Amino acid sequence: MKHIADSTVRRLSLYLRFLEEFERQGHDTISSGELARSGGTTSAQVRKDLSFFGSFGKRGLGYAVTDLIASLRRILGLEARWPVIIIGAGKIGAALAQYRGFGVHGFDVVGVYDADPARVGERLAGILDQLDAALEGDIARLQPRIAVLCIPGEAAQGQLDRVVKSGIRAVLNFAPTALTAPEGVAVRTVNMATELEVLAFALTNPEA
Amino acid sequence: MKHIADSTVRRLSLYLRFLEEFERQGHDTISSGELARSGGTTSAQVRKDLSFFGSFGKRGLGYAVTDLIASLRRILGLEARWPVIIIGAGKIGAALAQYRGFGVHGFDVVGVYDADPARVGERLAGILDQLDAALEGDIARLQPRIAVLCIPGEAAQGQLDRVVKSGIRAVLNFAPTALTAPEGVAVRTVNMATELEVLAFALTNPEA
Repeated sequence: MKHIADSTVRRLSLYLRFLEEFERQGHDTISSGELARSGGTTSAQVRKDLSFFGSFGKRGLGYAVTDLIASLRRILGLEARWPVIIIGAGKIGAALAQYRGFGVHGFDVVGVYDADPARVGERLAGILDQLDAALEGDIARLQPRIAVLCIPGEAAQGQLDRVVKSGIRAVLNFAPTALTAPEGVAVRTVNMATELEVLAFALTNPEA
Repeated sequence: MKHIADSTVRRLSLYLRFLEEFERQGHDTISSGELARSGGTTSAQVRKDLSFFGSFGKRGLGYAVTDLIASLRRILGLEARWPVIIIGAGKIGAALAQYRGFGVHGFDVVGVYDADPARVGERLAGILDQLDAALEGDIARLQPRIAVLCIPGEAAQGQLDRVVKSGIRAVLNFAPTALTAPEGVAVRTVNMATELEVLAFALTNPEA
């Protein structure tokens, strides 16, 4: 397969989100123009995004909603379920641990860890455990595929190295710092301050 | 100014985050190679990103850390403080309302709103109010510049239209749906499921 840019994968995910909603509303087919709006892009971009993965839709007839949902789920790897661990049970980590949307999309939170022993025993789906005591054993036993880091910036690289050493190959990082990982390990950083700064830039430079 | 891509602004924000940390560690100068690592990119890209905004650094000497921080803060619009309102006080909204990192970066949460009247009076910085009763009056009075939507997907477009009608020109959307806004209104969507799907794709297609 050609290298697929993150921005393409992101749009595929948005198309899927929109198609699922569209199907719930009872629609059978969708045009590339409607899909384009859902992804904040153009019809031509939709056709190009999908063309990486095969031939979809018929000219003038649009896409069959149910078929395209199945194709996108297969492309994105969502036919499997993905066990996820969350490291750091502060406000953001705890909120994510309880976010039901993950389950709907195929991601199962199988472990939540915090460095603070006083937090162990809190409910959080009954799976909050002490980071240093439990992490490596749990990774071996539960085989999570994705680790979500919800810890302070200065701790993030150390915990990334640790989960990578235990065999995890995908990390979602909420710490406000860029992390380095060996080749073959996918890392995505989501930072609320960065998102707000993108908006501050847009407000400050309305012509940019 | 030329149109600046979101991806460029995002990298500027990551450079800034890294430079602030680098300054705390007592460094005076930084090379484009070090900056590149912080943004997950190359030295050439760093130079190109900065070249949009003027001339920085000296060949062979790198960048003066303090000066570059000041320039990036000015470029990103962070010399001003930005009043922010949060709509939806569920788990994610409440976590964001209490996230101290916003204040550090110049964003002040001045109001938090929930549709559920039973939530009003909860602490949340003493500013949780009932959405329908308080929103328009508060926007007129507090003049927030950015609205953060932490509400279910089906409610998001309606609340976006509402804050835009009241004069807000920047929206950070956590609802799992793409939103449309009039020209001149900046909207960023952050979706946890999308981020996890990007990772699932990477794990499913290691060669892509």
